[in-house]
Amino acid sequence: MGTYMDVHTGMKGVTREQLMEAHRADLAIEADEKVHFKQAWADPEAGVVYCLSEAPSAEAVRKIHERAGHPADEIHPVPLMV
Amino acid sequence: MGTYMDVHTGMKGVTREQLMEAHRADLAIEADEKVHFKQAWADPEAGVVYCLSEAPSAEAVRKIHERAGHPADEIHPVPLMV
Repeated sequence: MGTYMDVHTGMKGVTREQLMEAHRADLAIEADEKVHFKQAWADPEAGVVYCLSEAPSAEAVRKIHERAGHPADEIHPVPLMV
Repeated sequence: MGTYMDVHTGMKGVTREQLMEAHRADLAIEADEKVHFKQAWADPEAGVVYCLSEAPSAEAVRKIHERAGHPADEIHPVPLMV
């Protein structure tokens, strides 16, 4: 398992409710790929959302976000943390 | 105070030690602008570093990272979190 930061762009005007709903959609199916989405942060003005997850691979993160209806634009393994 | 996610690019090959040293450099002066850097994640292969902070403004985050010797490429207010 590793830690991943993924990025969604084009989310201008995203609301708290939409962010929560998207997160719930991920949580509902994440176990299928042994992913866990821990946290997400959104900048509604720039339309950027960052998601932090624990997962077996970037591919696993990609699959869950795609199935949940919001494919990620970038998925980065982040093995270094402070 | 708000929450900010900033992004540094061009950090290919960044090591755990370099990430810790950069974080220490931020912590050493962050109080000057009432910023607190909470966490940072690095993808050494893509050369991307994400920093999460609490700060009075993006400008305050910018100043501290610049004075610490590693200006951010993007600084996003992230008022929405799950």
